[in-house]
Amino acid sequence: MKKPEARSEGGFDETAEFLKKADGFLILSHTSPDGDTIGAAYALCLALRSIGKQAAVACSDPLPNRYGYLVLPAAPAFEPKTVVTADVADPKLLGKNDVYADKVDLCIDHHPSNTHYARRLLLRPAASSTCEAMAELLPYLGAKITPAIADCLYTGIATDSGCFRFSNTSADTLRTAAMLLDAGARSAVINKWLFDTVSRSRLEVEQLVLQTMEYHLDGQAALIVLSRALRESSGVAESEMEGFASIPARIEGVKAGITIREKEGGVYKISLRTVSGLDASAICSVFGGGGHAAAAGCCFTGKTLKEVKSAILAEVAKALGNNGRLAYSR
Amino acid sequence: MKKPEARSEGGFDETAEFLKKADGFLILSHTSPDGDTIGAAYALCLALRSIGKQAAVACSDPLPNRYGYLVLPAAPAFEPKTVVTADVADPKLLGKNDVYADKVDLCIDHHPSNTHYARRLLLRPAASSTCEAMAELLPYLGAKITPAIADCLYTGIATDSGCFRFSNTSADTLRTAAMLLDAGARSAVINKWLFDTVSRSRLEVEQLVLQTMEYHLDGQAALIVLSRALRESSGVAESEMEGFASIPARIEGVKAGITIREKEGGVYKISLRTVSGLDASAICSVFGGGGHAAAAGCCFTGKTLKEVKSAILAEVAKALGNNGRLAYSR
Repeated sequence: MKKPEARSEGGFDETAEFLKKADGFLILSHTSPDGDTIGAAYALCLALRSIGKQAAVACSDPLPNRYGYLVLPAAPAFEPKTVVTADVADPKLLGKNDVYADKVDLCIDHHPSNTHYARRLLLRPAASSTCEAMAELLPYLGAKITPAIADCLYTGIATDSGCFRFSNTSADTLRTAAMLLDAGARSAVINKWLFDTVSRSRLEVEQLVLQTMEYHLDGQAALIVLSRALRESSGVAESEMEGFASIPARIEGVKAGITIREKEGGVYKISLRTVSGLDASAICSVFGGGGHAAAAGCCFTGKTLKEVKSAILAEVAKALGNNGRLAYSR
Repeated sequence: MKKPEARSEGGFDETAEFLKKADGFLILSHTSPDGDTIGAAYALCLALRSIGKQAAVACSDPLPNRYGYLVLPAAPAFEPKTVVTADVADPKLLGKNDVYADKVDLCIDHHPSNTHYARRLLLRPAASSTCEAMAELLPYLGAKITPAIADCLYTGIATDSGCFRFSNTSADTLRTAAMLLDAGARSAVINKWLFDTVSRSRLEVEQLVLQTMEYHLDGQAALIVLSRALRESSGVAESEMEGFASIPARIEGVKAGITIREKEGGVYKISLRTVSGLDASAICSVFGGGGHAAAAGCCFTGKTLKEVKSAILAEVAKALGNNGRLAYSR
């Protein structure tokens, strides 16, 4: 496979110029698709079709049920001439579509970690989501934000901003969402599907997980364990086991929320979420892991669950102790 | 006590003119204060002070801990000359401050159910919250939206709109919130306090409540029971027992979410939440209750819990049966 000839990071103008000149678009989403990659890919597809282009979306994995409210265009068969990725930070995330990994003509993304793998890159790290950037791009194409496009873009913004709850929500994010509501986004329907619906099995597994909650270090650390036994006995899909890592750190007084997930081969994967003042990345780096100040991770191999708990809690205790106010604030 | 002389419903201009001419403001919030009544009252208080007026806020009940991030002005002692209520739909909601019930010079509110008890009324039923209306009013006063005022107003909008999740969130709601972020509202801090913090006791009682979940009518009805025994054994405050009624209707496939709350004297209070197509108000009216199409309530006295369940489920079954598509959609 040939390597891309040149790599350039462009603005909205240049990106729109490129899209207007090209045709036969194959737009790729990342694996385990979320609302942002789906919303951005389909919004672009619909917009390109509205200005007379051939366009289709492809993703390695099926669309999760929770996005079932989206009315998505069918993918006609045609020979792709231009490959675009939406919300794909790294070509590894193309899954089965990795045959296109070094043939990507344009990547539209918001992840600061983007590996600059595409010929052209529209990267907007200040945007809450790729959909927020896409909402700004489409008018440059001369495309109208139809209600169907507005639904797609609202989906991505709402997904990535936790419905405007997360700290990546800026005034611009809210203004973009307002514009999408004006354009006909069915926000009430979408919010019900995304944020106000839970499956019976998910609710049941959540109860089982909450029963594993332990409090340590005078209530400053809370810990849950997602064991293989729990996962197997509950019979839920792997996709229903996501999103637990944020729970322990939500508890009042907790500075370190620890989630221990048992993987195959005696591996324990740790997710650490911390609140102001405690550096999750520094704690995880002791065990060869890393991440951000408020959310990081690491892995243990060849240790028992008890040893894993002791190791991570000792390091959290040390970090709390290094900061007198934190250590004695309860 | 004398009755108000005249009642008039005014716009932003007239309301601002009245406020600019008056002084010595006592601003009242409703009992069991939430973010909207608190935010609106304090935002108005701060704005009036910024234009040289005397103003204080009073509420019958203490401020809940979850609003602890607000930096609120102290209430100096002065003889009130002008009484304003914020987000108070009915003078019954003044609690201990009901001595002012028929002396209210101005009410600023967004509840369509407002009883028009005040001399002057600024009612904005299309607004998500009283704070959304207040954000529109303050510039008419010539008051600048300071960061402290922005925090108050954001608090009310976020509270009443479920952080922009509920269907009362309009494009204007989102635009107002964007303006408040620009004005310095600490949205990330506020969202963490309001939507991402749970007390240990609340989490524990939630687990107990979820254990009472029953599914009926082929999964179309889900039911939870908040018994007095559960409340007493868990030892949580009454205020931590709120917010459960929305849980059963969130479950996938559930058309009717039923919450039965045991009160003193053998009374059972029902909260019914329904999804599209099923009229909660009509079902509850059979038992002398009422409400809205998607959320209604009724009470039973002198029946056993088993009888209460049977009665409400029979009526739900009838309503589902009256609508063929709903009855057989699972």
